[in-house]
Amino acid sequence: MSKPASSRTRRPEGLVISIDAMGGDHGPSVVVPAVARACERLDGRPVRFLLHGDAARLEPELARTPAAACVTEVRHTPLLVSMDEKPAYALRRSKGSSLWNAIESVKSGEAQAVVSAGNTGALMAISRLVLRMTEGMDRPAIVANWPSARGICAVLDVGANVVSDAEQLVQFAIMGSAFHRAVHGQAHPTVGLLNVGSEEMKGHEEVREAHRLLSETGLEIDYRGFVEGDDIAKGTVDVVVTDGFTGNVALKTAEGTARFISALLRETLTSSLWAKLGALSAAPALQRMKDRIDPRTINGGPLLGLNGIVVKSHGGTDAVGFGNAIKVAADLARSDYASEIDRNMRRLSTVLHSDPATAQAAE
Amino acid sequence: MSKPASSRTRRPEGLVISIDAMGGDHGPSVVVPAVARACERLDGRPVRFLLHGDAARLEPELARTPAAACVTEVRHTPLLVSMDEKPAYALRRSKGSSLWNAIESVKSGEAQAVVSAGNTGALMAISRLVLRMTEGMDRPAIVANWPSARGICAVLDVGANVVSDAEQLVQFAIMGSAFHRAVHGQAHPTVGLLNVGSEEMKGHEEVREAHRLLSETGLEIDYRGFVEGDDIAKGTVDVVVTDGFTGNVALKTAEGTARFISALLRETLTSSLWAKLGALSAAPALQRMKDRIDPRTINGGPLLGLNGIVVKSHGGTDAVGFGNAIKVAADLARSDYASEIDRNMRRLSTVLHSDPATAQAAE
Repeated sequence: MSKPASSRTRRPEGLVISIDAMGGDHGPSVVVPAVARACERLDGRPVRFLLHGDAARLEPELARTPAAACVTEVRHTPLLVSMDEKPAYALRRSKGSSLWNAIESVKSGEAQAVVSAGNTGALMAISRLVLRMTEGMDRPAIVANWPSARGICAVLDVGANVVSDAEQLVQFAIMGSAFHRAVHGQAHPTVGLLNVGSEEMKGHEEVREAHRLLSETGLEIDYRGFVEGDDIAKGTVDVVVTDGFTGNVALKTAEGTARFISALLRETLTSSLWAKLGALSAAPALQRMKDRIDPRTINGGPLLGLNGIVVKSHGGTDAVGFGNAIKVAADLARSDYASEIDRNMRRLSTVLHSDPATAQAAE
Repeated sequence: MSKPASSRTRRPEGLVISIDAMGGDHGPSVVVPAVARACERLDGRPVRFLLHGDAARLEPELARTPAAACVTEVRHTPLLVSMDEKPAYALRRSKGSSLWNAIESVKSGEAQAVVSAGNTGALMAISRLVLRMTEGMDRPAIVANWPSARGICAVLDVGANVVSDAEQLVQFAIMGSAFHRAVHGQAHPTVGLLNVGSEEMKGHEEVREAHRLLSETGLEIDYRGFVEGDDIAKGTVDVVVTDGFTGNVALKTAEGTARFISALLRETLTSSLWAKLGALSAAPALQRMKDRIDPRTINGGPLLGLNGIVVKSHGGTDAVGFGNAIKVAADLARSDYASEIDRNMRRLSTVLHSDPATAQAAE
């Protein structure tokens, strides 16, 4: 029997999370308070942090935040990868940077997960180089945690790739299902494949072939068939699988729509004295609604498919948002996520590389 | 010199619009009042209607609606294409149906545009067969009129195709630009190509090649480069071009997001006595906001690229919505739309089928 892939993610001495403390628009001034917040939200379970970055900027923040300082070790480096660095350039030139070193801590086994609010392309390129892909996985996928009428819908890929073939879409389904269970606690997450209609003959070749594979290969996932764009917010399924181009456009279109309607609502509720009075009277209720679709509460999109847990935070988020990204990393590291993926990947591989009769037997 | 393509769309005796009166969820009970509404909105300019469908159902509606009756001629047929008919089946079996005959009236030159709230697949298949594609156009595209912070953004294709190559994307840009000018009155509509980032090297091969063609071929369109999903609601450009798969997912995702937020808002404003009082006080302002994003006001998505004007109405809309679809058809029929497309298609063809030096000269 092979060594369980999750062996590295469980340690008796508690969890260690590595952080690129210089990433994002704000760096240490957001990261350090976020560490303190994350500790509160981790229910007292032991956790330590390795903060990679400029000690001269980190130390004063830690001095102001004792709750973070007592669980943190600073790993100094003066180098950082800028937010607009091209991935190819970052790969060649970023060795020794806070981003690189933060990922390296996972590779070496010192930490069980890494969180960065830095440059997405560089994070992905360095992660692939340093950690490498999980066996059998072709490409990483970025997950978005999407608020829906029924909770959180995990949508992937939302931008790690621009094209995905049928087998990659199946890999995304496996990863997304394991992710939803690990982080959102749904015991048997349902999975849908994004398409332009729900009939079997709809869509392009890749989605139809992925549909066939998902329907027939007997993976441990609860596949429900095709879903459409409006099923994401409806929460028709827990996990929506799509290629990175479509997923990225869908995510940004939804964000744009939400911002447009919010702006209209703001304009509406200040348009007259009566409207202002109304807004005042409904203020607590409106605040609860705002909290429910607050992008900070769903911050933290993991890069799935790597040998190690890598979580991307939004670059412009604050301590609340970054704290949530840390929580996602901790939940993943403490879960069975990796071994579950490992199990399903072996099953998929058996089916793909055998004749139909063997595939039946594998089920 | 070739005969101007728009010659059929201008007639001294006024405009004639052909309508599939049996299409949609409601048929004549929506279509007839919609005709009366459309007349009001066409500013007294002469227009007549051919209503194709069951006379026994149409006559009583017309008797109740004199404003529609006086501009209408009923073309009786007992046959209709059901909303869930497969396009291939509809093609073989629907000759003589209200949908087929309505399209045929455009082909014969009796009418200058056709409007249907019926089965989209059948409408597209029969239109392609009866009217055929405009010379040089490969495939039709469906346009969505998207409310944005700066007016209306025309997005195409939103579902006529599942894959589109670079040349088709350029054709969509040409059609979308001419459409926006004709219907939304923007003298020089700006055009963007939907992608996952705004840098030149981003995206898959088709969008990068389409970007190159749009940047270099000297078409009469104001091309502004790549845009992202959130640029649609922002109104960054007037026309957004994408393949039918991505466009359909984006449209439905936006609709889903809008419905989700509307439901949250409704729930919020009824959640407590104070919230209800607030909603009451802000009611007129909230109603104005609702009107602004009312899907009926943007109803009417033309199928572009055909030899004739074909407008699809939402199947479940009411007389207000169907009336708007008629207005879109009338605006297109009265515009320079067809000759403008013809001009740009000849220019594109010159560039595509010549060497780079000639292409330069064509500019």
